Amino acid sequence: MTTLSNTNLPIGVFDSGVGGFTVVKALKRYLPGESIIYLGDSARVPYGTKSKETVTRYSVKNAEFLLSQQIKMLIVACNTASAHSLPTLEERFDVPIIGVIDPGAKAALAATRAGRVGIIGTLGTIGSGVYAERIRSLSKGEVSTAGEACPLFVPLADEGWISGEVPRLVASKYLSELQGKLPDLDVIILGCTHYPVLRDTIQDIADEVFGRPITLIDSGIATALAARDFLTSVEGISTSKIRGDVKVFVTDSSRISDIGTRFLGEPIGRVTQVDIV
Amino acid sequence: MTTLSNTNLPIGVFDSGVGGFTVVKALKRYLPGESIIYLGDSARVPYGTKSKETVTRYSVKNAEFLLSQQIKMLIVACNTASAHSLPTLEERFDVPIIGVIDPGAKAALAATRAGRVGIIGTLGTIGSGVYAERIRSLSKGEVSTAGEACPLFVPLADEGWISGEVPRLVASKYLSELQGKLPDLDVIILGCTHYPVLRDTIQDIADEVFGRPITLIDSGIATALAARDFLTSVEGISTSKIRGDVKVFVTDSSRISDIGTRFLGEPIGRVTQVDIV
Repeated sequence: MTTLSNTNLPIGVFDSGVGGFTVVKALKRYLPGESIIYLGDSARVPYGTKSKETVTRYSVKNAEFLLSQQIKMLIVACNTASAHSLPTLEERFDVPIIGVIDPGAKAALAATRAGRVGIIGTLGTIGSGVYAERIRSLSKGEVSTAGEACPLFVPLADEGWISGEVPRLVASKYLSELQGKLPDLDVIILGCTHYPVLRDTIQDIADEVFGRPITLIDSGIATALAARDFLTSVEGISTSKIRGDVKVFVTDSSRISDIGTRFLGEPIGRVTQVDIV
Repeated sequence: MTTLSNTNLPIGVFDSGVGGFTVVKALKRYLPGESIIYLGDSARVPYGTKSKETVTRYSVKNAEFLLSQQIKMLIVACNTASAHSLPTLEERFDVPIIGVIDPGAKAALAATRAGRVGIIGTLGTIGSGVYAERIRSLSKGEVSTAGEACPLFVPLADEGWISGEVPRLVASKYLSELQGKLPDLDVIILGCTHYPVLRDTIQDIADEVFGRPITLIDSGIATALAARDFLTSVEGISTSKIRGDVKVFVTDSSRISDIGTRFLGEPIGRVTQVDIV
């Protein structure tokens, strides 16, 4: 394990947009002393429907921006970027990097009793098969998986349609598809930073569709805990006595304050627009 | 009125993604002899949730690319780009440019008997107020308007959820909001290239919600007819004896063939990926 150059530098976090605020929320809870620099690539959001090449090109640009700000580690909050681009980022940049896939996969393995895990996410994340592959490899093939892309969950979360008839009906369609593929699963990974916003609806419908209590795994929380484990292991936890702050950069500032607040669960502070093309 | 340098050059069309294929479909119908060069900015789609500045920056890049391909005129198929960026494009580029707003507004004025027109579109298009302003100015204030942003229609069209329970419920929510604002309208402009794909559902629900037959205006068709009028007026219709072809460029090729086919109503041909950042 590496040691960090300066433990009091902030943690860099990027996401395709504001979804990563659900990861920031978890970081603030589990690592309250850390400062965070967040970059949301809102001018090019979403990543979930775009190709691996495009997502990787954007991810590299995002990482370059955050590294130019002086960070001690990088968290790729976006599931699609983690699924498509983590190896490229790790190869390209000399900083500890944590994506959301590995922590989410481990948390799911720790939670399943049935040995069957469902994964819901964007088209990119599900299409990549990276969660499934990670679970297969970690469990030595003992845990089965099935994935279902749920592309309408992102706009529903963005619009704040998080409870009521429409999201329930949409969730019921997606989860019934998943049920058809792996009827006896007991754990579902929320494999997109937007989904925790819809958590109550997804929980309700999942319990109903599968006919048993389903454990939902929030990859964002799993990632925040993995970041804490990593920083502890390298003695990299901030020693600053003041509570960490969050600096937010976005590539397009449209709608950031209202949507961001829904994802962070509290008002977000000053937002700076940057052009990173 | 200007004359065109070369009437046998293609028409350039750009859109934020594949939605503009509904405009291409109309162009192929009403101007079958014209060749078309289409650019879909699928690496940065959607435009509808992004700021005027970002959309204008992208629109300028798109126009530059199409002009480099030698075109006789430019059609801005995207409603959001037309709403935010048309003046900038007209100022910047020396080529005849037609957007979708003006033709759509005129078609709506020609269709309304009640003197009341509803507009549905993206957050960007509705927020800009450009349709409303154009209708007010063309009718000298005699026609009233109300707008409703319908952000979930785009992902529904992309996913092919164009009929059945979910799109009906979503349409019913949006159109009821519009009904609350302007209950006695008789015409609604489909102010987004994606919406014609949902036309049957929107028609059905609109008739139900407003309790009378509602005329839907397809801005894409109105724009194709405006392009034909313009080309006729400047003697710019292609004199080529062979049927025009469509060359498609995209900035990200993910999912273009399947979604594009839904919008064009026939298989799309060869697609070339370009990087226009």
